[in-house]
Amino acid sequence: MMSTDDNTATAEGTVRGIPRRKLFALGGAAGALGIAGVGGGAIGYGVRGAQEKKQSAVHLSYPFRAEKQQGILTPAQDNMYTAAFDVTSADRQMLISLLEDWTVAAEQMSAGDLVGGAPDANVQLPPKDSGEVWGYPASGLTITFGFGATLFVDANGKDRFGLGDKMPAVLKEGVPKFANEALHADVSDGDLLVQACANDPQVAVHAIRNLTRIAFGTAKLRWGQIGYGRTSSTSTEQETPRNLFGFKDGTNNIKSEDPQKELAEHLWVQSGDDPASDGWLAGGTYFIARKIHMYLEIWDRVSLAEQEDIIGRDKRFGAPQSVSEPSTDEEFTPLDFSAKNAEGAAAINARSHVSIVAPEHNKGAKMLRRGYNYTDGNDSLGRLDAGLFFIAYVRDPRTNFYPILRTMATKDLLTEYLQHQASALFAIPPGVGTGDTMIGQKLFS
Amino acid sequence: MMSTDDNTATAEGTVRGIPRRKLFALGGAAGALGIAGVGGGAIGYGVRGAQEKKQSAVHLSYPFRAEKQQGILTPAQDNMYTAAFDVTSADRQMLISLLEDWTVAAEQMSAGDLVGGAPDANVQLPPKDSGEVWGYPASGLTITFGFGATLFVDANGKDRFGLGDKMPAVLKEGVPKFANEALHADVSDGDLLVQACANDPQVAVHAIRNLTRIAFGTAKLRWGQIGYGRTSSTSTEQETPRNLFGFKDGTNNIKSEDPQKELAEHLWVQSGDDPASDGWLAGGTYFIARKIHMYLEIWDRVSLAEQEDIIGRDKRFGAPQSVSEPSTDEEFTPLDFSAKNAEGAAAINARSHVSIVAPEHNKGAKMLRRGYNYTDGNDSLGRLDAGLFFIAYVRDPRTNFYPILRTMATKDLLTEYLQHQASALFAIPPGVGTGDTMIGQKLFS
Repeated sequence: MMSTDDNTATAEGTVRGIPRRKLFALGGAAGALGIAGVGGGAIGYGVRGAQEKKQSAVHLSYPFRAEKQQGILTPAQDNMYTAAFDVTSADRQMLISLLEDWTVAAEQMSAGDLVGGAPDANVQLPPKDSGEVWGYPASGLTITFGFGATLFVDANGKDRFGLGDKMPAVLKEGVPKFANEALHADVSDGDLLVQACANDPQVAVHAIRNLTRIAFGTAKLRWGQIGYGRTSSTSTEQETPRNLFGFKDGTNNIKSEDPQKELAEHLWVQSGDDPASDGWLAGGTYFIARKIHMYLEIWDRVSLAEQEDIIGRDKRFGAPQSVSEPSTDEEFTPLDFSAKNAEGAAAINARSHVSIVAPEHNKGAKMLRRGYNYTDGNDSLGRLDAGLFFIAYVRDPRTNFYPILRTMATKDLLTEYLQHQASALFAIPPGVGTGDTMIGQKLFS
Repeated sequence: MMSTDDNTATAEGTVRGIPRRKLFALGGAAGALGIAGVGGGAIGYGVRGAQEKKQSAVHLSYPFRAEKQQGILTPAQDNMYTAAFDVTSADRQMLISLLEDWTVAAEQMSAGDLVGGAPDANVQLPPKDSGEVWGYPASGLTITFGFGATLFVDANGKDRFGLGDKMPAVLKEGVPKFANEALHADVSDGDLLVQACANDPQVAVHAIRNLTRIAFGTAKLRWGQIGYGRTSSTSTEQETPRNLFGFKDGTNNIKSEDPQKELAEHLWVQSGDDPASDGWLAGGTYFIARKIHMYLEIWDRVSLAEQEDIIGRDKRFGAPQSVSEPSTDEEFTPLDFSAKNAEGAAAINARSHVSIVAPEHNKGAKMLRRGYNYTDGNDSLGRLDAGLFFIAYVRDPRTNFYPILRTMATKDLLTEYLQHQASALFAIPPGVGTGDTMIGQKLFS
């Protein structure tokens, strides 16, 4: 991800073949010269900023082949469609063919091309691509693949595709039970994971639809989740996006700019982490998702002061409650758990959400968060079925995820307003190399 | 809508108080001077075009008070959340209060403000606004309100709120039955309609959520539908957006630039159209929606040539099949139903979709279409639950909608691939005037 080679640069992406940094320099020059020339002043500057953001959002494209898979450290796109598939065939070769076909299609779609290229109207066959984004830009599409526990062994412990010996211990152990969950099995887990993220919802839907189509006869869609609104690129310029409780979310996250050492420690599986999967998963990571329903109607009846105490931050700016005068400048000020308020009590409640999940209270454990808000309609009482599709990427969920979630489930003041309704855990292999024919090639070789 | 006064201009919108036309002029100058100065050439031009589009998408704001309601002729935004509410109170005054409160909130949200303004942290009350778009730009939000048949009389024909005498004949007659429908009552119709459209999905969700909250105790959310991807502003620059069958959709639509005479004839209810509702609905329109499930898996197995014959247009460019060499330039070429193909047969099949719905085959009837694609997850067989949430605005559905739909249901080749699953009809009053306290004020006065 941290490559300095522009042809394989991933986190930064390219815009119609121009390295993004260079383009921003062009855009900046254009704005400065042009807008200043007609006296746009402060408004002109704001316009220019928004133009750069949106230009990049629609025209970004990330190369599918890279050292790491895209969609992990890639700056979060506006829209997500994550889906899990169950393999319906018992044939190892059919599974391999599917992964090969998916790899070809994912590379084409990531480049903004149609699956299989432009169709020939003279051939009396259905087009390979369903066509609903024909002519659309790549829109920053990333497609991230993963392997679930049930791909390795079935419910009876039987090795399905001769992969049992390579099953990671993390998948074998599975996700433990937590206090505040009511999980629905039909929208949890699965054999294969596909996370599609893009700056146009139609582009993300197109990706899942066409991969579903390719899988016909080998694997079927088990569940899919659409999410939105978790990036500042469409909506907030420089501001951190908000969750449906109205608070900024993701302020204190691992960033793609964080030093390699930090990413190696918390994000990427290292050689030697797990003997069984060492040969294919080293350099990869784990995807863990929780579909968290938010009781919006109950939350909306809580006073602003109490909401802020529950979160541990100011609602307007996202400043820690340890800061006496919240402002835009204070959002990224470090949390100070020793600070006292005017009454002499802890400024940040020890059971506030930020305190519970803070690395300093969790043996330094960090996770890369990549969640999206969701709204799935409403129930018969007219209550919105909405919340957060929380996604974390971690080197090992046993150290970097489960302990934090366990504390959250029992102590976090926020937990009263949440219910975990689905869960998913997948091993994420490294990216597809130049000579590879498929994602996860080393798992099958 | 066609006002030349920039302060109340609606279809064009304003960007942070600058009339949009003026801003585009500024942007154009900036691009031309700046990009040309650094030799950006063709790519620079493309970038500039995208910048203008995206800038406008996020920063557009439409004044809620105007002669016509917004969200009808307003250029379609990227995202839609349409909801219907049922009034649970029998008290006319409570209904009026709700409409007054909704009007205040809609005006605030349209301006990019919080409902009730910024909350006071010292008051021990819940904030009036749920806060998830605090600090976000208005994102082109429009909120359009309508009244359904059941607001006037209940299932037993009883006048609910003393409005029975003013019930339009169109609502009294209701939507006739059609051949290919399997309607679900719980996601059809309702007492009150709210259509929220915005260029950020979170802004649309926020609007429906907060209006739902305000309605608590008086009305409850009956159904809601999220849609996406029906505008070219995010994804396709100048291209007409595509539906989930992969075809451009909306090429031959009424445009906001169409002459007033055409809009008066096909879109706006005219004085004298209906004696019962003349006093409050003249100058308004009717909203009719059909949730149309698309059998994607079946369609995807049809050859490209056959798909094009069914639609009557070329898939890549959207050019009519009466054009011998389809290209980008031919999308807006008029349909020529007399043209022959190389075999001497009609170039455009008489049962093709474009032929069935063409105004020349429907006594000249036109409708303003404003549909959105939807994807609501998948069924247990892994098939996407997806399609088109078709919305039309018409002066009278009995002349401009039902006859066309009836022909479609029986003759259109496309109908085999569709199923209508929900239906909704609402009367849309004119906009809220400067001195009005509520939407639909004349209905209650």
